[in-house]
Amino acid sequence: MASMSAVLSKSPFLSQPLSKSPSSDLPFSAATVSFPSKSHRRGGVIRAGLISPDGGKLVELVVSEPRRREKKHEAAELPRVELTSIDVQWMHVLSEGWASPLGGFMRESEFLQTLHFNSLRLDDGSVVNMSVPIVLAIDDEQKASIGESKRVALVDSDGNPVAILTDIEIYKHPKEERIARTWGTTAPGLPYVEEAITNAGNWLIGGDLEVLEPVKYNDGLDRFRLSPAELRKELEKRGADAVFAFQLRNPVHNGHALLMTDTRRRLLEMGYKNPILLLHPLGGYTKADDVPLSWRMKQHEKVLEDGVLDPETTVVSIFPSPMHYAGPTEVQWHAKARINAGANFYIVGRDPAGMGHPVEKRDLYDADHGKKVLSMAPGLERLNILPFRVAAYDKTQGKMAFFDPSRPQDFLFISGTKMRTLAKNKENPPDGFMCPGGWQVLVDYYDSLTPAGKLPVPA
Amino acid sequence: MASMSAVLSKSPFLSQPLSKSPSSDLPFSAATVSFPSKSHRRGGVIRAGLISPDGGKLVELVVSEPRRREKKHEAAELPRVELTSIDVQWMHVLSEGWASPLGGFMRESEFLQTLHFNSLRLDDGSVVNMSVPIVLAIDDEQKASIGESKRVALVDSDGNPVAILTDIEIYKHPKEERIARTWGTTAPGLPYVEEAITNAGNWLIGGDLEVLEPVKYNDGLDRFRLSPAELRKELEKRGADAVFAFQLRNPVHNGHALLMTDTRRRLLEMGYKNPILLLHPLGGYTKADDVPLSWRMKQHEKVLEDGVLDPETTVVSIFPSPMHYAGPTEVQWHAKARINAGANFYIVGRDPAGMGHPVEKRDLYDADHGKKVLSMAPGLERLNILPFRVAAYDKTQGKMAFFDPSRPQDFLFISGTKMRTLAKNKENPPDGFMCPGGWQVLVDYYDSLTPAGKLPVPA
Repeated sequence: MASMSAVLSKSPFLSQPLSKSPSSDLPFSAATVSFPSKSHRRGGVIRAGLISPDGGKLVELVVSEPRRREKKHEAAELPRVELTSIDVQWMHVLSEGWASPLGGFMRESEFLQTLHFNSLRLDDGSVVNMSVPIVLAIDDEQKASIGESKRVALVDSDGNPVAILTDIEIYKHPKEERIARTWGTTAPGLPYVEEAITNAGNWLIGGDLEVLEPVKYNDGLDRFRLSPAELRKELEKRGADAVFAFQLRNPVHNGHALLMTDTRRRLLEMGYKNPILLLHPLGGYTKADDVPLSWRMKQHEKVLEDGVLDPETTVVSIFPSPMHYAGPTEVQWHAKARINAGANFYIVGRDPAGMGHPVEKRDLYDADHGKKVLSMAPGLERLNILPFRVAAYDKTQGKMAFFDPSRPQDFLFISGTKMRTLAKNKENPPDGFMCPGGWQVLVDYYDSLTPAGKLPVPA
Repeated sequence: MASMSAVLSKSPFLSQPLSKSPSSDLPFSAATVSFPSKSHRRGGVIRAGLISPDGGKLVELVVSEPRRREKKHEAAELPRVELTSIDVQWMHVLSEGWASPLGGFMRESEFLQTLHFNSLRLDDGSVVNMSVPIVLAIDDEQKASIGESKRVALVDSDGNPVAILTDIEIYKHPKEERIARTWGTTAPGLPYVEEAITNAGNWLIGGDLEVLEPVKYNDGLDRFRLSPAELRKELEKRGADAVFAFQLRNPVHNGHALLMTDTRRRLLEMGYKNPILLLHPLGGYTKADDVPLSWRMKQHEKVLEDGVLDPETTVVSIFPSPMHYAGPTEVQWHAKARINAGANFYIVGRDPAGMGHPVEKRDLYDADHGKKVLSMAPGLERLNILPFRVAAYDKTQGKMAFFDPSRPQDFLFISGTKMRTLAKNKENPPDGFMCPGGWQVLVDYYDSLTPAGKLPVPA
């Protein structure tokens, strides 16, 4: 990892040569893609003019340095709520304003609006998207220990206060309803539900959040975790006139690379002078059979070394959110959070944030619902949704290409399951599916797993 | 039923003397009630100025008389889809514009927006509320028989064409997801689900609806079924400057009467000169243990004969929608439909459209969520939501009164279950709970049921 680390220890951006755009296909569905007006470009001078955050102002909830000591003293005196590791990830998300204008864990009115409307109405009557509940559960005992206090300290697993929640509201945690409305199913076996909801407390506690220190994980990857404010600063420094975000939680293959380079080509054709790619792997909780973040970052390094993306026009960063696997509901969250980081284009593929149904032999969500719901979602009108056609392995060209429905027999679909099976068995995918270095990381990852189905050892 | 029939055969409005307003309590929660501006009253002259329908124009989908013959001939040539009785009720709802601006059974984009956002975005960017899917299910065989046709005839259970659906779209019926997102549970035993979804086809068919004749049920109650256009005409004729709607699906007791008269008193205090009550029992599908419509109408007659509501300021009509029992999701539909009928105030009580959880020993919904969700719902901003405090039997006064939390021991709560049990056993409720004539109708209803738990014989 030396070469990427060397580059990335100074900045999270890559320094590989740009490959040629590999396709002249049109990956966009003309019916659903809209492009922004160029009103932010005047007199021939490109102004960065990043999309404004939801609510107009980026929320930042980390206590400023001079006040930390005082706040820590305050926290020490308050009733305590211990956070799980997923709670800490949400606190991180909130603290940096990914969920702007949300100022803390949801109170009931925000929770209900999220469940029923996937959006929040602000005091001025405007609407922002908010599709996934960001809530903090407590049990009966914790509720009793809080008593009449209007403030609590949030503490980590070692009992150290990490935040204060103020003007709190405690309300019932309607687990079944939350699950049904968020996932569209209550079938047993939903990973996030089993990890974070089933055994959680029967109450939710909302309030205004103050985080005592910037959240760090000390896993060697913190330097990749740029906040929305840091990303905006970088994007402005580069003079981006279009920012296109690509969410991923899986290894990158050449089909992904194809659509990223093709998107850039298309934006240039549209007249943008400096479109910047935000390559944004998800860094929070993922299910046990996903490839862990540390291995994914190694794999991304190898793929990027292979030179498919231009470091001058690419920003690589980690999105700290946990993963719900809630399909059309969750993809809105993924898109909305990227607005707050400055993205005004969002790439959406087949079945975003989807997975197999945990009980029935089918996908949980219709593969097209994600992009349809995203294109209609309240509060996302400002974001340009870029649906892409499916990329598959074109046997006639020996490389990944956009699927051509006129000659289906030429294409090979390599699913995530298929990819994992090949890597587990140390077999190779077809040439041109993924660069050999990237593939080797996957093989090494599966090799590192102890036998008998145990979970991977953290890298 | 002679006296009401005599009056009602000419018009659906009552002619009983006005009782005194029985309470000086304040039934409104000041925090959540807002009142409309009086901008529609100018120069001291009250103008009716009813609230405009959603989308600006009331949708009416019944083919005009001169074109019926031609349309019937067209329908005879088309592939046929047979409607269930609940489908016919929804067709009725659509045909009269209760769901304005919806112009037919939902296509997929409307279905998805309903499930995810409880609202529809119109072409001009404005938003209307739409919380309950109004969809038509077909099975594989029907889908095959439609083939490539862009139009179908909808036929009744006798095979007679009753409508044409044009520019159709057939898409998957994701039953589990529909149920989870609409009800917030997938527990077995939801009445509407078992009646209308579980055994329905795996496809939905949407399109533009043309209904060949006004929908009639020939059950002696059609004269009570005023369309939104007819209601608007009547309300305008009366010069209403405020219209407050009361949805009900149960027998009326004196607690209901209390809040209706009290609402009127409050509106007069607010400066309205002519508030009109729309007393609007639901007439479509209800679950087996609810009192059937025909008996409810008899009961309403007796209660109204008792003189608690003023015929000059009350309009009684039947709302033709089927009942979902979907709590906070459904109450939005109940409110939205009444906007289309001209109501600008909507009375909401405890646990609207709620029921017991079909499996667990608890209510399905939090009793307060309905009014909270209603007050925040997209597209209902123009409607004034009037939450009311719980009425209960005040033992010290011997009548129904608003519950006073400072002296809970004085109040007796008589639940629907308790009321039904008393009536089944031919016992009397406390004096002042319901007028004797109304109570006798309930006793007669339960008496009419055959023993051994059979369903009631239709009256």
